Amino acid sequence: MNAVILSIGDELVLGQSVDTNSAFLSGRLAELGLMTLYHQTVADDRAAITAAVQQACAAAEVVIISGGLGPTQDDLTRQAVADAMSVQLVLDEAALKTIAAFFTRRGRTMSDSNRVQAMHPVGTTMLANSAGTAPGIKGQLNRATFYVVPGVPREMQVMFQEHILPDLTRGACIGAAILTAKVNTFGLGESSVGELLGDLMRRDRNPVVGTTVAGGVVSVRLRCAMADPDRASKALEATRAEVERHLGAYVFGRQETDLPQATVDLLRQRRITLATAESCTGGLIGKFITDVPGSSNVFLGGWTAYSNHMKVQQLGVPSDLIEVHGAVSGPVARAMAAGAISRSGAGLGVSITGIAGPEGGSPEKPVGTIWVGLAAGGEPVDTARAVRLNLAGLDRQLLRDRAAKTVLQLIRFHLLNVPFDRIQWVVKD
Amino acid sequence: MNAVILSIGDELVLGQSVDTNSAFLSGRLAELGLMTLYHQTVADDRAAITAAVQQACAAAEVVIISGGLGPTQDDLTRQAVADAMSVQLVLDEAALKTIAAFFTRRGRTMSDSNRVQAMHPVGTTMLANSAGTAPGIKGQLNRATFYVVPGVPREMQVMFQEHILPDLTRGACIGAAILTAKVNTFGLGESSVGELLGDLMRRDRNPVVGTTVAGGVVSVRLRCAMADPDRASKALEATRAEVERHLGAYVFGRQETDLPQATVDLLRQRRITLATAESCTGGLIGKFITDVPGSSNVFLGGWTAYSNHMKVQQLGVPSDLIEVHGAVSGPVARAMAAGAISRSGAGLGVSITGIAGPEGGSPEKPVGTIWVGLAAGGEPVDTARAVRLNLAGLDRQLLRDRAAKTVLQLIRFHLLNVPFDRIQWVVKD
Repeated sequence: MNAVILSIGDELVLGQSVDTNSAFLSGRLAELGLMTLYHQTVADDRAAITAAVQQACAAAEVVIISGGLGPTQDDLTRQAVADAMSVQLVLDEAALKTIAAFFTRRGRTMSDSNRVQAMHPVGTTMLANSAGTAPGIKGQLNRATFYVVPGVPREMQVMFQEHILPDLTRGACIGAAILTAKVNTFGLGESSVGELLGDLMRRDRNPVVGTTVAGGVVSVRLRCAMADPDRASKALEATRAEVERHLGAYVFGRQETDLPQATVDLLRQRRITLATAESCTGGLIGKFITDVPGSSNVFLGGWTAYSNHMKVQQLGVPSDLIEVHGAVSGPVARAMAAGAISRSGAGLGVSITGIAGPEGGSPEKPVGTIWVGLAAGGEPVDTARAVRLNLAGLDRQLLRDRAAKTVLQLIRFHLLNVPFDRIQWVVKD
Repeated sequence: MNAVILSIGDELVLGQSVDTNSAFLSGRLAELGLMTLYHQTVADDRAAITAAVQQACAAAEVVIISGGLGPTQDDLTRQAVADAMSVQLVLDEAALKTIAAFFTRRGRTMSDSNRVQAMHPVGTTMLANSAGTAPGIKGQLNRATFYVVPGVPREMQVMFQEHILPDLTRGACIGAAILTAKVNTFGLGESSVGELLGDLMRRDRNPVVGTTVAGGVVSVRLRCAMADPDRASKALEATRAEVERHLGAYVFGRQETDLPQATVDLLRQRRITLATAESCTGGLIGKFITDVPGSSNVFLGGWTAYSNHMKVQQLGVPSDLIEVHGAVSGPVARAMAAGAISRSGAGLGVSITGIAGPEGGSPEKPVGTIWVGLAAGGEPVDTARAVRLNLAGLDRQLLRDRAAKTVLQLIRFHLLNVPFDRIQWVVKD
């Protein structure tokens, strides 16, 4: 079984945006054992899209087309697919109702131009879109089953998950059972994870083990292909256990579990509440924590003490500490964490203060110098801990992202009694 | 003159890497007036590359192929191009010497496998590579001039600069100048933007105008193709002015300007400092603001008052307000904004409190009910304003993202004296 991925949009062909959908889709198809023959990016041109769809549907059994399903005149995928099939577009009343309901729910009226989003080529079926207005389309052309989904990456991903994935795994298309698993770690670079895994990463092994990095999280991906599903499942389990044993506390979760979720889960399990005092991350730690539904059980809130005045006034950091050590220092990080606890009543207080750049660095404290503080409720203020991170070489966005994630992993290490300097970018004193 | 871009590599087709070369190349070609017809990503498969090269060279006058010029067995572009031309590969002695010298300079010895990098199809010329070992190739097939360059982005870019760009600008090949522009808006759905633009979006217009959405931001993209660059530039300017006139205050910036940047710029211009009081967004507004380098000039900091206790204790929200109206209400939003000002000394205080879901909704206050407060420094507390947003139907992440961006646009509307209910999801009372 082969696949072709088409991405539609002038902005892609003109180089104004980078096409990330194709990599996402073919990556997921590869996990299922489907080989992608090629990706093609096509302009918002009806004839060009028609030709590309025909060629793809002659070359592969599965064709996924993203983009060009919007409500405006430059969205032509729907019409082009109909042209490729030599059929007309027809209105789907149910889809129209769903789209109208989407607008009603938000107290808006649907504009006429949205009507076209309820149309699809005769002989195709519509795929509900739980993440936006434009439904997708599924149909048959030559030897291929094709799927048309919106180009907005999030909507495309949701549609893949809800429609295409179940279709492909249900289908009789795949000869062997292909099972996959994922183990997520934070605190080491990819090559260090590879070294800890050693022979587990040999390419001739089954299950095969590989690593990928996204946003500083190194995920270990396992893929097992065996004729017998039971044997495959047992082999996968055994390898996963071995991977997790090698990687220890760096592992924060399996499959799609992210670091905020894992942190909130552990806090909830221990019945410990949290408060944050952020400087250089500007609220990002709180944002990560509150990404998790129900985090209000463990997260009381926090301070974004961007100015020194806020640090002194709102968190009770002694101003002479700032004068003597500077705002980016261990003593100030400790005082911020202690202040967050004493003023919120939380069981655990974390703080962060650092130089995110591009300006503000100095020879003693270059860009990338970050201090993290941790204080436990009920303990004397002077037991608060502080560690220094070295995240030099990352740009502002990346640095803040890694710093905030490091704080989450440090919360976990604190609760699990793991030494902080296991994290590769924590500076050992 | 049209172009086609081919990217070669299993890692691209399998989704392990995102192809950024195509966007770079077609962006640069567009600046030169060359329209890219399509991008195609092809696996490390000799026959597949051969077919793709033949198709591309039949479709366009300029074909750029990147990747597959390395020294290992999976680098097959060189051979495939020879196949497409029905010729043999031949060794270029001068190129071999250059490659050997490259290794000598770095104190390494050249391995035998590097010899293949000095080979090229009969009838083509080699292009020196100043950034790596693999020379590029330039040749002619059907109507096309084709260029083969390494896939490593830096080498590809250097080769483009040193060989392809001078060729194309020198050549008589370019018939028209193609200029592009982007205008970014927030506060309307894509279809409403399309309606405001009306006939500007007709597909037969030049400059042609299209819309794309990313993260709730609707961008209007303009593209102008004309023989005379001066006329093209004037036509683009005129259309951009018309687009901006139609979209008024919804426009926050051009090209790559994002909403946080535009908000910080406006605050800085007015010399007004900001403080935030966030509940449901958990710090996301502060995160957005502090994404902007140098935002410390205008951002003092804020509170993430996730619990009611934090709202009362830290922001001075009267607890009876919460009891009577609930934490998600206009009066509480106003009190939070006023508290943020009085406790930080900022010139402008914004607050947000809402139900982000998936739990916590009620018939009176369903998930998606959000209150935003704005208070100006120096004014009496009871002049603080509050507006309600209806963001029902979005999931937790999306809802928080849209809510935080709406607060940024409301800050701009406040400073620009634009009525808040121009934003489509602000509830009109």
